Amino acid sequence: MDYQGIIEDIIKEIQPFTSHGKVADYIPEMAKVDPSKFGITIDVIDEGIYSAGDAREKFSIQSVSKVFSLTIAHSLVGESIWERVKVEPSGSPFNSLVQLEYENGIPRNPFINAGAIVIADIMLSNLPDSKASFIEFVEQISGISGLAYNENVAKSEMDSGFRNIALAYFLKSYGNLDNDVMEVLDLYFHMCALEMTCEELAKAFLFYAKHGSSIKFDTIKVTPSQVKRTNALMQTCGFYDESGEFTFTVGLPGKSGVGGGVAAIYPQRYSVAVWGPKLNKKGNSVLGMKALELLTSKSEMSIF
Amino acid sequence: MDYQGIIEDIIKEIQPFTSHGKVADYIPEMAKVDPSKFGITIDVIDEGIYSAGDAREKFSIQSVSKVFSLTIAHSLVGESIWERVKVEPSGSPFNSLVQLEYENGIPRNPFINAGAIVIADIMLSNLPDSKASFIEFVEQISGISGLAYNENVAKSEMDSGFRNIALAYFLKSYGNLDNDVMEVLDLYFHMCALEMTCEELAKAFLFYAKHGSSIKFDTIKVTPSQVKRTNALMQTCGFYDESGEFTFTVGLPGKSGVGGGVAAIYPQRYSVAVWGPKLNKKGNSVLGMKALELLTSKSEMSIF
Amino acid sequence: MDYQGIIEDIIKEIQPFTSHGKVADYIPEMAKVDPSKFGITIDVIDEGIYSAGDAREKFSIQSVSKVFSLTIAHSLVGESIWERVKVEPSGSPFNSLVQLEYENGIPRNPFINAGAIVIADIMLSNLPDSKASFIEFVEQISGISGLAYNENVAKSEMDSGFRNIALAYFLKSYGNLDNDVMEVLDLYFHMCALEMTCEELAKAFLFYAKHGSSIKFDTIKVTPSQVKRTNALMQTCGFYDESGEFTFTVGLPGKSGVGGGVAAIYPQRYSVAVWGPKLNKKGNSVLGMKALELLTSKSEMSIF
Amino acid sequence: MDYQGIIEDIIKEIQPFTSHGKVADYIPEMAKVDPSKFGITIDVIDEGIYSAGDAREKFSIQSVSKVFSLTIAHSLVGESIWERVKVEPSGSPFNSLVQLEYENGIPRNPFINAGAIVIADIMLSNLPDSKASFIEFVEQISGISGLAYNENVAKSEMDSGFRNIALAYFLKSYGNLDNDVMEVLDLYFHMCALEMTCEELAKAFLFYAKHGSSIKFDTIKVTPSQVKRTNALMQTCGFYDESGEFTFTVGLPGKSGVGGGVAAIYPQRYSVAVWGPKLNKKGNSVLGMKALELLTSKSEMSIF
Repeated sequence: MDYQGIIEDIIKEIQPFTSHGKVADYIPEMAKVDPSKFGITIDVIDEGIYSAGDAREKFSIQSVSKVFSLTIAHSLVGESIWERVKVEPSGSPFNSLVQLEYENGIPRNPFINAGAIVIADIMLSNLPDSKASFIEFVEQISGISGLAYNENVAKSEMDSGFRNIALAYFLKSYGNLDNDVMEVLDLYFHMCALEMTCEELAKAFLFYAKHGSSIKFDTIKVTPSQVKRTNALMQTCGFYDESGEFTFTVGLPGKSGVGGGVAAIYPQRYSVAVWGPKLNKKGNSVLGMKALELLTSKSEMSIF
Repeated sequence: MDYQGIIEDIIKEIQPFTSHGKVADYIPEMAKVDPSKFGITIDVIDEGIYSAGDAREKFSIQSVSKVFSLTIAHSLVGESIWERVKVEPSGSPFNSLVQLEYENGIPRNPFINAGAIVIADIMLSNLPDSKASFIEFVEQISGISGLAYNENVAKSEMDSGFRNIALAYFLKSYGNLDNDVMEVLDLYFHMCALEMTCEELAKAFLFYAKHGSSIKFDTIKVTPSQVKRTNALMQTCGFYDESGEFTFTVGLPGKSGVGGGVAAIYPQRYSVAVWGPKLNKKGNSVLGMKALELLTSKSEMSIF
Repeated sequence: MDYQGIIEDIIKEIQPFTSHGKVADYIPEMAKVDPSKFGITIDVIDEGIYSAGDAREKFSIQSVSKVFSLTIAHSLVGESIWERVKVEPSGSPFNSLVQLEYENGIPRNPFINAGAIVIADIMLSNLPDSKASFIEFVEQISGISGLAYNENVAKSEMDSGFRNIALAYFLKSYGNLDNDVMEVLDLYFHMCALEMTCEELAKAFLFYAKHGSSIKFDTIKVTPSQVKRTNALMQTCGFYDESGEFTFTVGLPGKSGVGGGVAAIYPQRYSVAVWGPKLNKKGNSVLGMKALELLTSKSEMSIF
Repeated sequence: MDYQGIIEDIIKEIQPFTSHGKVADYIPEMAKVDPSKFGITIDVIDEGIYSAGDAREKFSIQSVSKVFSLTIAHSLVGESIWERVKVEPSGSPFNSLVQLEYENGIPRNPFINAGAIVIADIMLSNLPDSKASFIEFVEQISGISGLAYNENVAKSEMDSGFRNIALAYFLKSYGNLDNDVMEVLDLYFHMCALEMTCEELAKAFLFYAKHGSSIKFDTIKVTPSQVKRTNALMQTCGFYDESGEFTFTVGLPGKSGVGGGVAAIYPQRYSVAVWGPKLNKKGNSVLGMKALELLTSKSEMSIF
């Protein structure tokens, strides 16, 4: 298949949508990003890597990090992880705190903020230096080096993320956080503030497309079965309350972040990473969602 | 792959679970079913059909019918269908009426009761004889004949289904039902009361596994793209608020019914139908869920 | 105190508010009322009755009827009534169906629609001719005669009140209605469609201000303690989710209806009835609320 | 009326209920209190003060403090206070965080925790030394001296009150807290930790029964109208989601605290304070509620 041709066509066809949406501005440091950026990379198993646009520019991966942190925590504590976080889609946006209250402090899944904060708590309890291990893990699965947190973004979120702080204390009140709330949030906000390019993100997600075959990370062991389940979770919970819509129109497991990044996979075939900073009302990248819809439509490749 | 061997192993391995769950008894007519029944059929593309247990016994397909009615309504009115019903998972069980109220009478997806009642309304507005067309459609896609509604079950639901009647009037109050409420419910309860065997259900679902290639139904035209999207919907919404769990542990698109039937597909490979009348707390067949988990685990076939 | 002077001042001072709000138009028959009407009557114990404006014109009492039906049902079944309906304020408007679901079909109080439908069911089970008894009761406590239902309004609600029908079936699904749903609604809609003038309503509510001392109704016996409790309920639940605001600004127990009527009492001193058809967003009469606020402010009479 | 005889009868008649309920143990420091304590004081205008039982023993007034802090904040900023907190009953207990989310960070009333935290924020912004002013205010209205915070209780709540910390950060995320979250909570927890006896509390509430006539507090000015409105608020919101029940059975405005204290008033007649540490499921004192029900029943005095 002519992947390079496809992604260049995509860049042309998304032009009418470049004016839609707006950059996440609730994090002051991230509001500075150039809203006109767009990059895309496809990494095809046994074939090669195809990029277009701003695919080599760093951006804040934000919630895409939740896939990596889940993989690490899952490998550290095994299936007991599901006693502290569930695997169901969260439904509506307003449910974030609401659901947590109905369900006694057990977050619906590890890809909503509450769930990812619990995941960070598990990492803190089981790793001597969680921040270093997180970067090391992402570097290992992607085969790249030199990744770094954007400390300004992390600090910016720590200073203004009152709602996430509220969520964390709420989890603590239910006994679902073992560590100090502010330490957990410090790790959580750092993982969100990791910076990667589309190319780097595609390489990292190839690990998921290949069911983890490439892993060589000593203390952290990931089984193919765990990777398949993470992929299944991305399918049902990867795009907040737009997960059904994404599954319906794109048909690939994926995960988005408010930095405008989206990563997705076609199991056993390819991974893809897209970046466009402007978000729709649900908090997902307008161009990212559109680009992936075009990709599966052009390649006639939906897993369904 | 030795499918016959696999399903015979499954029958052995589910034995410890035969005492779990209970038959749906809120529909008096259905409470009469023998709870010890279990049947399974796999229909593999270009290969053949494998059955075990009570696979040739009729049961009430109940909500599995929602897949067929969606396909019909979708083909009748095209994409405008999504103005009246959404494609997002519904979250929690208590949300049935709650969500409808928050979302102004637009059901979250066509596989919850409220959504399927809207679908029935669309059929009534666009078909001269919806009840006959529904049976004809299922017969066409499965290549079988002689299907029939269980009138006692339909009547039993009409007489005792106060909550569904409430749902339908609630939809009507939001202007999301065009026809008379009782006529819509009459169609809805009849479709739920269709009786099929595991073998028949597997044959019907092969249509979905094959992306609809076999359809030869004159007024109703189904495109491969529509079938893929229905499959995607089954993945995210097929098992009520256990959809995430099913996707996570089984990894196949599917649909369950309170009659104890479950149908699922592996796109481009096979369809599978299972029947076990006893339900878990979420309203899904205990043995059906377990059998499918064993199937994907034994065959190492999850779409993820 | 110069009550006549006070109510004439009130009529002048409400003029700036006559353009606010809108007539309830979801009941077609009621949308025909003249929006510029305004009437007020105060009936002072041992002193006399004072009226101004359109105080002798009939209007649909709507939910004000819930006070009368509660009194009747309470006298018929005694304290067992509280097993089927509670005495707590309902909180937010969206809660009507939501709360019913959370609380397993037990309405929060007898002054929300769900609660009043249960009350109508209790009347039907305990009276040979509930519609006649209801009118007879109101005539007895007010010492007037010739009251009648507006059959057009009752029919109009029965034909278009899909939400109330939904509520009633929902109650039925929880086992909290003993009679046929449509018969219960027929009684409920008729009681709402009773027509009275401000003068008649004030006379009827004097019964509540006087703690029921005047009752001489053979089969229905009301104790002073029951009246006091009904008054307490009006204080906390009389104005839907504006009950707190009304208690806060007016400080009298009262009850409003979407026909624009409001009745209130000062225990042991007076009753008051106001009518202005235009409603605020909460469904309460704009001029009625304002007039009562002016009344307690001018007379320096709040029960607090 | 023989008030002394009444309260001595009450002490006898509550004996069968002394085994009901349990002491609030989520605050470790408060779990140490002797559960068998019971005290009651009635302070009758122009007549005198009547006490029985442990009426001169100190206890933690907890949420009863919310009446005092509201009065102070209301006098400081006037009617603008209602832009930051509403006056509606809160409905169900689970609503604490839920409602806050639905209503965009504006608490339902100043007597739920979220509302009282906003009140503490207003005090901090308008008083040079809020903690000192609070004690001085309570001493002034009650005419007593030597009141003090229990620092151990305040610290105990600060260390374990994760849910309140979550609430406060949640308010902050909506922009409804101006000061540092931890400073606001420090004031809030201290006010809750004020220690008073039944006699002292009755004296303080006499201020409310008399519509504030006795106030001589220089910077803080309270009008009779403000006091009447505070009394109205106690009626609709004083007992969490048992406020309707209390209004219904007791018929007096009042406020309870998880320390087991309850204070109530009969406007223009008397104030009453009761203390019994064991709480019912709604968080209100079992003996306190029962004692007040007996009081209004024996004295035939309900404001309705």
